[in-house]
Amino acid sequence: MTAFHALHVPGTPLLLPNAWEFGFAAFLAAQGFPAIGTTSLGVSAVVGLPDGAPSTRDATVALARCLRPVDALVSVDIADGFSADPGEVAALAVELAEAGAAGVNLEDGRPGGGLAEVRAQSVLIAAIKAAVPGLFVNARTDTHWLAADPPPVAAAVDRARAYADAGADGVFVPGLAEPAAVEELVAAVDLPVNLLFLPGRTTFAGLAELGVARVSLGSLPYRMALGAALDTVHAVVAGKPLPLTPPSYGDVVKLLPEA
Amino acid sequence: MTAFHALHVPGTPLLLPNAWEFGFAAFLAAQGFPAIGTTSLGVSAVVGLPDGAPSTRDATVALARCLRPVDALVSVDIADGFSADPGEVAALAVELAEAGAAGVNLEDGRPGGGLAEVRAQSVLIAAIKAAVPGLFVNARTDTHWLAADPPPVAAAVDRARAYADAGADGVFVPGLAEPAAVEELVAAVDLPVNLLFLPGRTTFAGLAELGVARVSLGSLPYRMALGAALDTVHAVVAGKPLPLTPPSYGDVVKLLPEA
Repeated sequence: MTAFHALHVPGTPLLLPNAWEFGFAAFLAAQGFPAIGTTSLGVSAVVGLPDGAPSTRDATVALARCLRPVDALVSVDIADGFSADPGEVAALAVELAEAGAAGVNLEDGRPGGGLAEVRAQSVLIAAIKAAVPGLFVNARTDTHWLAADPPPVAAAVDRARAYADAGADGVFVPGLAEPAAVEELVAAVDLPVNLLFLPGRTTFAGLAELGVARVSLGSLPYRMALGAALDTVHAVVAGKPLPLTPPSYGDVVKLLPEA
Repeated sequence: MTAFHALHVPGTPLLLPNAWEFGFAAFLAAQGFPAIGTTSLGVSAVVGLPDGAPSTRDATVALARCLRPVDALVSVDIADGFSADPGEVAALAVELAEAGAAGVNLEDGRPGGGLAEVRAQSVLIAAIKAAVPGLFVNARTDTHWLAADPPPVAAAVDRARAYADAGADGVFVPGLAEPAAVEELVAAVDLPVNLLFLPGRTTFAGLAELGVARVSLGSLPYRMALGAALDTVHAVVAGKPLPLTPPSYGDVVKLLPEA
């Protein structure tokens, strides 16, 4: 079991904050967070490309590389793997492992909506595990993500079990929040379960009680960062108080290497 | 006079928010801000390199390129030009102009403290203007930046006049805040004056009254972004309210190109 795997404890979940750049990740590590995820929305928005598009593959790898000096384990959001070809997805996993990544998130949602065929997705997972056995593969299923009319939890359970059989180390069902559904998923799947923190719908303590092993924040910190920066500009123009007390220039500089 | 130059009106200053990535810049443009700056601290922290170091030259150019689709004029913070060689600094200006930049900020502060020799700095400014006459060169002097024992305002005036003679289009004196000093600078220099917003020390309206033509925010929005993201993580762990209501996933996605 890897150090990253060991952080996934049902009932005492790993809080995995998602970063999109070095500065935030370095701050988190300095504050003692042992592991961080990345967020495809953040990575995409930083460079101005569509969320999770194949064109963001380079930025995804570049982020993993620039996070290497950060004293935290890193799990990289690779969206759908940026390719339907198992060899290409495995090659990406190898690159990320060489960049120091401890894990990846691979999702079965596909651009334009809809889910990958279970067997095809399982082949991608197996290809990654064959290429880099020590890389924690968090298999994300989008059965409940942005679903206007969410299916029964069994839909997520079926996919989670198939991905477990393919070698996944954990399963992630963003959008799932209803306690009975979470409990059913945790009981039915023999892998650490990761859920997304959803403001107003889930709490970290509540998810812990339900046996979840990892709670991630997705794009929330990135969107908060944008919101605070925008609020700051408007506050300055209006002569109103700033939204919060930010870290100082020196606080940020000391996270960076010496010139 | 360029469109960017025309935005510099003494007494009715341009509020120039500083961005470090596409997403924030795109939000600002969507909200009607006609121009944005960049921040060397943000650019450096995103990639984990020392603030303003020559190693951040590529990230600086890459940011300018990725901001090209944003519907706003862009002024790029090039720190000290990342080189003491006038040809190299001029070549950087050409690259940035080709990437669509409307202006640059060139500072006379040097890594490790101290200021460039006035004549050498003037040569850099003249080299940029000779290579790209239409690029707005904001000559920053660091006489009053992070100064434990700030000199008389005359120190900034002398440098501002020399840089004006070299062809600068505007002068920037970060750290200057005292109203009498600001008034003296504005009266003594025949170019648009840019000051830095300093929380608790200056206000946008106050700087406007003193005849300032541009107010920039420096690294403040970036540091606010980091602070809000960190506060978010801590709030989730503690089960406390989030620091603010962020833009939604859809709000961010609609700023990005279509997949």
